[in-house]
Amino acid sequence: MSPADAAGPADVVVALDVGGTGMKCALVRPDGSTVHTERHPTDAGRGPDAVVETILDVAEGLAGKARADGLDPVALGIAVPGVVDEAAGVAVWSANVGFRDVPLRDLAAARLGLPTALGHDVRVGGLAEARLGAGRGTGHVLFVAIGTGIAAAHVVDGVAATGAHGAAGEIGHILVRPGGPRCGCGRDGCLEAVASASAIARRYAEATGAGLTGTGPTGAAGGGGLAGGGLAGGGLAGTPASAADVADRAAAGEPAAARVWAEAVEALADGLATGQSLYDVEAVVVGGGLAQAGPRLFDPLRAALHERMTFHRRPRLAAAALGDEAGCLGAALLALDAR
Amino acid sequence: MSPADAAGPADVVVALDVGGTGMKCALVRPDGSTVHTERHPTDAGRGPDAVVETILDVAEGLAGKARADGLDPVALGIAVPGVVDEAAGVAVWSANVGFRDVPLRDLAAARLGLPTALGHDVRVGGLAEARLGAGRGTGHVLFVAIGTGIAAAHVVDGVAATGAHGAAGEIGHILVRPGGPRCGCGRDGCLEAVASASAIARRYAEATGAGLTGTGPTGAAGGGGLAGGGLAGGGLAGTPASAADVADRAAAGEPAAARVWAEAVEALADGLATGQSLYDVEAVVVGGGLAQAGPRLFDPLRAALHERMTFHRRPRLAAAALGDEAGCLGAALLALDAR
Repeated sequence: MSPADAAGPADVVVALDVGGTGMKCALVRPDGSTVHTERHPTDAGRGPDAVVETILDVAEGLAGKARADGLDPVALGIAVPGVVDEAAGVAVWSANVGFRDVPLRDLAAARLGLPTALGHDVRVGGLAEARLGAGRGTGHVLFVAIGTGIAAAHVVDGVAATGAHGAAGEIGHILVRPGGPRCGCGRDGCLEAVASASAIARRYAEATGAGLTGTGPTGAAGGGGLAGGGLAGGGLAGTPASAADVADRAAAGEPAAARVWAEAVEALADGLATGQSLYDVEAVVVGGGLAQAGPRLFDPLRAALHERMTFHRRPRLAAAALGDEAGCLGAALLALDAR
Repeated sequence: MSPADAAGPADVVVALDVGGTGMKCALVRPDGSTVHTERHPTDAGRGPDAVVETILDVAEGLAGKARADGLDPVALGIAVPGVVDEAAGVAVWSANVGFRDVPLRDLAAARLGLPTALGHDVRVGGLAEARLGAGRGTGHVLFVAIGTGIAAAHVVDGVAATGAHGAAGEIGHILVRPGGPRCGCGRDGCLEAVASASAIARRYAEATGAGLTGTGPTGAAGGGGLAGGGLAGGGLAGTPASAADVADRAAAGEPAAARVWAEAVEALADGLATGQSLYDVEAVVVGGGLAQAGPRLFDPLRAALHERMTFHRRPRLAAAALGDEAGCLGAALLALDAR
């Protein structure tokens, strides 16, 4: 029986997707439709205790809003970035949000009195894409979020692998270019250091000698946000070129942009090929800010990935379909699964 | 309830681990103890039909032997190399054995009248190591078999991931050295092309100008046999040095051997670090012929792997404990699981 089958007509899940800057919030029906959304600032600089208080206040407010609208809040799902121990309900390490071993699931369950699940932002995003989005109907899906960082979720039959310590899917930190650019994790040549949206912007700035401040690679396990920035941006005279600008300039034939973009695509293809060698999936779904580049990303990436498939079965390569709602939807699914 | 709990006192599983040269066969009790073993030549050159007939004859003979000894054969488990669709019971592609889309499970079930499971040799080996061997008591295990090829099994809570098409775990074919040695799969720089036992022997022969015939890299998905050769061997004047010889000569300070061995260890550490980034396991268990090098392999490999762990949890690195029985034991476990 699927969660939707078991649901009452007024059932909704309170869902929060907490990022470093803001938190996306929603009331989600068991069938995955969204009946209400809100956004709130995270304001992580206030420290983890204040952020937890805000999360609990916002969640409580959403549950109250649901009841006022005649709906029945039946569960709470919260997604956070970093390393998340889903089984224990603990935000082990979230650099962006300032969390370190925060037992967020139990704190929230105690405050709201609802069955609560805590998930990892990219893993729940992958869950949502696999079950409701671009991977719908596909048993084995690899979801890859490319934003300020790069992270993945391996979803089999609607369940995302967590790993032993909540740290599975760190595809941004696999070696693709030995001796290559230094990554935020401290190693050289990680995929994220070549092909994240922020790496593309940084490498283009380096290649063209343009000034660029404060946009070094992100810390390990801190990036990969679902719709995290990095693609949108600039293009104004004097501001650094974003990854979107690099894609535009590459399409227009500018040599430095074309080189940086091609190097990123090749590195991504190497990383996805490694993922396929290990996971053997039917579909690779790419989301996050960089996916907004559309065919400028997907056409050359598909060709480069398929070129690397020798004995492998070629996975379908698709753009994520749920946009920045994926985190809330996935947090809601996780909460329904855990109920 | 575990299979052992449900077992009758005389229950045994007929288990076959079919390789390119020979097949290891056993009668295995549900608790994992072996009551009888046999070996038979595969003689793959006779063609797939003849090999299938031999497998069926041997399995039938083992079931008869069990009954003659007062035992009760309750299931049949068969492991083969290559690409194996466990759900369909089909040997999709086994270069070593000459199989292509052979519905071996149903053929065997029809002949013997026993519940039958067909598994992949390295995946069932990993299953056995995770449940009965070096990974016993560990929920998340990555088993890596290094022989003529390199392949892996990701085992979570006693279940080995198969992938969508039976091709998961091909860690031998992840890129670790862009522009590096040509792999049997047709790509350059795969882990297997640098660090399999046969690659080590080949690279040492190339480095020293020694003659070497007929020991090129193995085909994709065809290697990684559990105890497949590649380490044992030679050392006689005039015969090419084996990987074991290279390890010996490296330990004795011979520069070319030390360089080839160190390059293999570094590449293995890169490959295992990629595995840990994606899987987040508690233990990495290394088996296959190369593991027989013992501390000459495990000491530098452990150091190199841990050096690469930045934000990751460090997995325990252990040598496989079941030797070349792992394939039969795992085939038996798979058959009991499927019953």
